[in-house]
Amino acid sequence: MPDNRLHADGARVLADLHALRSIGAYKTGVHKPTFSEPHMRSLEWLAQRLAEAGLTAAIDGIGNVLGTAAKSGPKLLAGSHLESQNFAGWLDGPLGVVYALEAARIINPDPTANGAVEVAVWCDEEGHFGSFLGSRSYVGAVTDDDIDAARDRSSGRTMRDALREVGLAGRARETAQRGRHIGYLEAHIEQGQMLESGDLKIGVVTSIVGIWQYRITFSGEQNHAGTTRMDVRKDAGLALARFCVDIDDRFPKLSGPRTVWTTGRITLDPGAPSIIPGRAEMLFQIRDDDPGVIDRLEDLLRSMAAEVSAQGRCNVAVERLRTGAPAMMDATFQQTIEAASAAFAGGRSVRMPSAAGHDAQVLATIMPAGMLFVPSIGGISHHWSENTGDADIVTGAQVFVETCRRLLMECTT
Amino acid sequence: MPDNRLHADGARVLADLHALRSIGAYKTGVHKPTFSEPHMRSLEWLAQRLAEAGLTAAIDGIGNVLGTAAKSGPKLLAGSHLESQNFAGWLDGPLGVVYALEAARIINPDPTANGAVEVAVWCDEEGHFGSFLGSRSYVGAVTDDDIDAARDRSSGRTMRDALREVGLAGRARETAQRGRHIGYLEAHIEQGQMLESGDLKIGVVTSIVGIWQYRITFSGEQNHAGTTRMDVRKDAGLALARFCVDIDDRFPKLSGPRTVWTTGRITLDPGAPSIIPGRAEMLFQIRDDDPGVIDRLEDLLRSMAAEVSAQGRCNVAVERLRTGAPAMMDATFQQTIEAASAAFAGGRSVRMPSAAGHDAQVLATIMPAGMLFVPSIGGISHHWSENTGDADIVTGAQVFVETCRRLLMECTT
Repeated sequence: MPDNRLHADGARVLADLHALRSIGAYKTGVHKPTFSEPHMRSLEWLAQRLAEAGLTAAIDGIGNVLGTAAKSGPKLLAGSHLESQNFAGWLDGPLGVVYALEAARIINPDPTANGAVEVAVWCDEEGHFGSFLGSRSYVGAVTDDDIDAARDRSSGRTMRDALREVGLAGRARETAQRGRHIGYLEAHIEQGQMLESGDLKIGVVTSIVGIWQYRITFSGEQNHAGTTRMDVRKDAGLALARFCVDIDDRFPKLSGPRTVWTTGRITLDPGAPSIIPGRAEMLFQIRDDDPGVIDRLEDLLRSMAAEVSAQGRCNVAVERLRTGAPAMMDATFQQTIEAASAAFAGGRSVRMPSAAGHDAQVLATIMPAGMLFVPSIGGISHHWSENTGDADIVTGAQVFVETCRRLLMECTT
Repeated sequence: MPDNRLHADGARVLADLHALRSIGAYKTGVHKPTFSEPHMRSLEWLAQRLAEAGLTAAIDGIGNVLGTAAKSGPKLLAGSHLESQNFAGWLDGPLGVVYALEAARIINPDPTANGAVEVAVWCDEEGHFGSFLGSRSYVGAVTDDDIDAARDRSSGRTMRDALREVGLAGRARETAQRGRHIGYLEAHIEQGQMLESGDLKIGVVTSIVGIWQYRITFSGEQNHAGTTRMDVRKDAGLALARFCVDIDDRFPKLSGPRTVWTTGRITLDPGAPSIIPGRAEMLFQIRDDDPGVIDRLEDLLRSMAAEVSAQGRCNVAVERLRTGAPAMMDATFQQTIEAASAAFAGGRSVRMPSAAGHDAQVLATIMPAGMLFVPSIGGISHHWSENTGDADIVTGAQVFVETCRRLLMECTT
């Protein structure tokens, strides 16, 4: 039976989320790139809330916020991130942070609850400067050289300059104290339609897919768009367009049930209306939790590139930029989220992999980790119109707090 | 019979071209965007050569250079441009300017030659700031408001700022004195392979094709590249790629023998590797000297857009940005170039349309105009490796000077 004293305060959770939404507001979403003024203001706002909840909180030298508890007993780490993609949604990140804050507020002062929740806000989960730099710093996987090399992918500004401008230069980076936490729990919007279409309330994440990323470059011959006859052209842009269409036609035959692939950026060189592009480039991504599927698709990609190159008009080069590592979520965490869903969400939960990357995949490299999802309206994500119904947000908070309580209660340390 | 005293000095022509090539050199070509330091230095170099040839020369308030002659009798205007596309060839523009300079040097001081050649260097033929702003200013088709609105398409710098920085702000713009010139002659590299493949030396331009330009915009749904299943995506970038391929498949059935079309720029929005593009845009251009062909192709383009929109995934909008106006070259000029080719190029000339735009199409709106082409090695153009053999350059100069002499001689004014 759920203990009424340990319910999340739904109105408080919604109020906190709206307070964060008002910082850096853009239409119904937010624009808070990493180290922007609204991002930093959000971190300071959160640090104050943590202090009010009795946690000791500070922003460390990479922009992570860690709120630690003095209470004895087992400790569970929980959190997410506060920066956003450009002109994106209000819940992607803040939802998991506010749930963790709420769990700390409810559980830490309660004498009937075992142990404490500690809150983490990981910097740059959205990857403006790199790949999970905040959480990877915490697990010890980021060197000073990595930070020296990091640059904002939009503006080119170095991470060092950004850290200096927001007053974090020279500050120490916090790293995990081995053995301090029984594990890491993160909540997030689903960013898909599986929950909504099945009228479900909670996604119990089983694994987080790996992301493989490629740069595919087409080299043809730059020439004049008026004087070069169609039959002698070596148009790198057209070769790229044909390649995109071929991928879309041929990938489905070799992909798995949940494989997704995306061309997110295309650049034609020189990019002038009166010049046939001599060079073209696409950023291409494949996601799956089965590396065997990826192997098949990467082989296909390379053989397609070889076929085009062999035709002699344009040369195609495939370069892998990022190799994915699927992360498995802890079995006990999954069972506990399911049990909490049975108590607070009428059992309307489903086990599912996460097709998006999350800091939980990084934390999973050093401790047990779990994730739960709440529904996304229309599955829309990484766009300012992203949203979740208030009732679903509150249900998610109840399940989250209950999951924290149970995970801590089951520990006898 | 050609008069030996009126031969172009081939060594001097080549020396002048190499002098201009050394200003703003890039690999074997040049990088001289409009109003860049090497562009301005090239204009000053040319003004000095004009003065040495006895012409009164000055740079006007839009960056045109006009060299006028005091000699009595009919006057022929001749010239081209000195700025380049970015990282482009050494002959595109300078060839026509140096030929005009050489013709003035040979004809103007000679008592047996009738009249004089006057030299024009038109600013921004390559369209960094607009469309033929220099020659259009000369024919009276550019207002001060047009100049206020013009911006560098790469840097966004306004034309007013650029004019101020190079010291031309406030200077008057020269416009044509009606009746002063019997016509305008321009030489240019072919930028194609028709002359080379036929072992021909001179192209006699019959018309200059019109350029129609379009912005084609695809609106889908921006979403997360991991969590959005393939079957529910509305990927604007993929729709754009399919559209490019469809154009390439369907245009040939309705195009004319010389129609060309080009997608020079593609932009995906937001252009991030982990986001399905919600919006995509392409700059698309069609060239032909037959507006009837363009009408058919534009109809096709619009019906293809309607077909895609009707499928319901992405909406496609076709917007015409620029309407072409094919320009006819003067019949007497064509006959005279042919006759000069018979005398100085063994008759190895051919009549052909120009598939590239040139200032001659603008001058043709107020006076008779003609153009001659010399061969381009491999047809390469708008690229630093553009080139023409020395012997072909010299032959072109002979034909050009002889054409000027004959056009002036036939005038009795």
